[in-house]
Amino acid sequence: MFETDERRLARWERRAEWPLTALAVVFVVAYAWQVLDDRSTPGLHAVLEVVLWVVWLVFAIDYAARFKLAANKRKFFVSHLFDLLAVLLPMVRQLRVLRLVTVLKVLNRRFAGKIRQKVGVYVAGVTTLVGLCASLAVLDAERHHPDATITTFGDAAWWTLTTISTVGYGDRYPVTWEGRLVAALLMIGGIALLGVITGTIASWLVERLSGVEGQVVEAEQATVAELRSVRAELAELRTELRAARAEG
Amino acid sequence: MFETDERRLARWERRAEWPLTALAVVFVVAYAWQVLDDRSTPGLHAVLEVVLWVVWLVFAIDYAARFKLAANKRKFFVSHLFDLLAVLLPMVRQLRVLRLVTVLKVLNRRFAGKIRQKVGVYVAGVTTLVGLCASLAVLDAERHHPDATITTFGDAAWWTLTTISTVGYGDRYPVTWEGRLVAALLMIGGIALLGVITGTIASWLVERLSGVEGQVVEAEQATVAELRSVRAELAELRTELRAARAEG
Amino acid sequence: MFETDERRLARWERRAEWPLTALAVVFVVAYAWQVLDDRSTPGLHAVLEVVLWVVWLVFAIDYAARFKLAANKRKFFVSHLFDLLAVLLPMVRQLRVLRLVTVLKVLNRRFAGKIRQKVGVYVAGVTTLVGLCASLAVLDAERHHPDATITTFGDAAWWTLTTISTVGYGDRYPVTWEGRLVAALLMIGGIALLGVITGTIASWLVERLSGVEGQVVEAEQATVAELRSVRAELAELRTELRAARAEG
Amino acid sequence: MFETDERRLARWERRAEWPLTALAVVFVVAYAWQVLDDRSTPGLHAVLEVVLWVVWLVFAIDYAARFKLAANKRKFFVSHLFDLLAVLLPMVRQLRVLRLVTVLKVLNRRFAGKIRQKVGVYVAGVTTLVGLCASLAVLDAERHHPDATITTFGDAAWWTLTTISTVGYGDRYPVTWEGRLVAALLMIGGIALLGVITGTIASWLVERLSGVEGQVVEAEQATVAELRSVRAELAELRTELRAARAEG
Repeated sequence: MFETDERRLARWERRAEWPLTALAVVFVVAYAWQVLDDRSTPGLHAVLEVVLWVVWLVFAIDYAARFKLAANKRKFFVSHLFDLLAVLLPMVRQLRVLRLVTVLKVLNRRFAGKIRQKVGVYVAGVTTLVGLCASLAVLDAERHHPDATITTFGDAAWWTLTTISTVGYGDRYPVTWEGRLVAALLMIGGIALLGVITGTIASWLVERLSGVEGQVVEAEQATVAELRSVRAELAELRTELRAARAEG
Repeated sequence: MFETDERRLARWERRAEWPLTALAVVFVVAYAWQVLDDRSTPGLHAVLEVVLWVVWLVFAIDYAARFKLAANKRKFFVSHLFDLLAVLLPMVRQLRVLRLVTVLKVLNRRFAGKIRQKVGVYVAGVTTLVGLCASLAVLDAERHHPDATITTFGDAAWWTLTTISTVGYGDRYPVTWEGRLVAALLMIGGIALLGVITGTIASWLVERLSGVEGQVVEAEQATVAELRSVRAELAELRTELRAARAEG
Repeated sequence: MFETDERRLARWERRAEWPLTALAVVFVVAYAWQVLDDRSTPGLHAVLEVVLWVVWLVFAIDYAARFKLAANKRKFFVSHLFDLLAVLLPMVRQLRVLRLVTVLKVLNRRFAGKIRQKVGVYVAGVTTLVGLCASLAVLDAERHHPDATITTFGDAAWWTLTTISTVGYGDRYPVTWEGRLVAALLMIGGIALLGVITGTIASWLVERLSGVEGQVVEAEQATVAELRSVRAELAELRTELRAARAEG
Repeated sequence: MFETDERRLARWERRAEWPLTALAVVFVVAYAWQVLDDRSTPGLHAVLEVVLWVVWLVFAIDYAARFKLAANKRKFFVSHLFDLLAVLLPMVRQLRVLRLVTVLKVLNRRFAGKIRQKVGVYVAGVTTLVGLCASLAVLDAERHHPDATITTFGDAAWWTLTTISTVGYGDRYPVTWEGRLVAALLMIGGIALLGVITGTIASWLVERLSGVEGQVVEAEQATVAELRSVRAELAELRTELRAARAEG
């Protein structure tokens, strides 16, 4: 019974993977269009807004469906608390930028499956994607504030670069509550990125080391095999000796 | 005699643990209240001030009691020099922000015991707590200075974030002597945090490696055991051979 | 047939190494001269410009020749995509600063071959060279902009230092599109530099460890050799015993 | 002959150790006094200046003496090039701040010998000493410049802190050529400091690992010893068997 539920959850996740990835791409494109084309006709703006909310709604439904299919609902709730927050918090207008977190998580999952081997490509790809989304989000948040220093996409991209590298000149910085939230996420992302790089070097180190270790374990096993055959030889020798005594 | 003293010290520390943790929480709450509710009635302000000093006094008494119970007073004095400074220095009004150091140390000790296994949760928790206290302390120090750029809790939190991530835009920075002391502690905390993260990765690395090592050591021991049984077999063989000769 | 092509490509690269290094040095000197001697007579300026484009052209021809000699053209194209971009992009006037990337790559290759053992010297050398080129490039890009804060070589060198160390005071920062491109490359270079330092420490660690490992592997091999001679001894013993029985 | 020279050089260095350390402390104190007591009577100022130059002269003589005693002068010249530069460059008035480099090197050597075991104390001590000297040097360089933002010791210490932690708010920054030289040295020092911390963690890691390794090597040696006694037993067995055949 439980097993069936688990299997149904896994099947749901496998089937939902492609559509969710496609929707995540749609979301990023629509979001970029809305932010970059600030003076678009109100009609187009409204269409893009609807697209963004529909995608967000599909992600909310995906969470609900997975919750429904989970066998152990409490465990699912606890271990997917972050997912729930990323789905619920954007309902507050001021926090709608957090919709990007869910979208990035979906894209990252697909992305990681494909190219995790090529760590350089993976890190570069994730950094570019996160940087792009952060630039769009901070531009969206800051643009219309009277004291804003980030008013064009160029400014936003430059600010993202100086922040993620922790250089922080301070010629551009967010002044709104929402922009600072983006900055906080970007800084956490930057530290996480460094952690991934360190972790990669560490795991590469382990691999090289366990290569030698593997050799030692193999040699060890050869020794034990050799010893067993020595003991067998000895046992046979004793048998022969007994036979000799019996004959003698 | 000495043993008894040591045991009495350990018993004191075990018994004082819960009350001190509770008092540390009380201190942080009272301090936050006092700083955030700047325009409170003078009466309430005075009450909070009294609470803060009473908690500090209890921590001072705890130090004195532990000093009294210690068998080797000189060794205790040297190895708890930092504790003594954290208790004595806040008597100077300008350094009263250092009371937070003692409080954070107590909270960290309890915190660490509970959740050190879940490193991610631990690091996030400590960072949040340190960041909160630093924000309150810098706001307290800066608020009434004429050149201050940090005048609201939002500003203080934003400044803490840009400092601990070492981005440092420079749109907000402390200008008072006391605020800069908080900044110094926060920067040291930030570097320590990075050290903890690196150390965690390193120890995880050691664990994975010593897993393989354990295997090798086990295989080694199996080899030696096998060899011993081979030697026993040989000894028996010699005995039989002698018996054969005696018979022959 | 393929083998021959591969060998011809390797021979080309071996023969082109010295001339390309010399041209790279010529390029850096001419570029530095052009940037630092801003008020030179137009005639000299034009000569230097011609020198720079000729060197770039030779690098483009080198790419074309290597492409022509490559046995598997598709594989060469994919694995040398970065080289191609570094040769093609500078044709756009705004991106001509990217010519320095090709030049630095050639210099680094020679440099690395000579002194990779002395890691300290290597890191210091590369950092100095990259810093020098970045200073020249940012000065070239910024100097004539009305809002520029980087207008002398001293300013540019100081800005490079604050950027590569990620301190980023923000007293000087690029304001042009081209200058920010230089900054982006410099920041990536800075992170890469830290990666090299970490990687060096890691590999030194591996070396020290595999020293011990090598000892273990040797000891293991000695054990197996010893065991084989024990088995030979046993076999001989059995032969003797059989002879004894035959005699008996 | 050569041996004797080497021994004489070693004896010189051992004997000069204490006086040079004392002179280094004198230098730092005199330098601090001169910088902090800016409005002292010209007479006192002149006395301190003389003290500083005398100490520098003694360090120059120490270099000359060691050069004279060195058996292989060319090798000594190459491997002590840095020492020579630190002694010669301060003769240029603009570079007199570099005298501090020689002084710090001497203090570090003594310091390191005493407390290298206690890494935390060592790192804290070196950082404090370097920070103090950098604060004094930057204050000395900047104070009288019209655009200076660092004009008091408090400012200088705050600037040093924001620089060595790579936060770099940019509220204070050097504007003179000499002050920027101090900044460059401080940033290099900051990166070196991080390298020391990483290196310490790495070496601690190696120690913990080689603890297990040592166990494996020991077990290996026990195995080989065991095997040798097995072979001895076998040889004896063969001798007995031969005796039996002779008897039979």
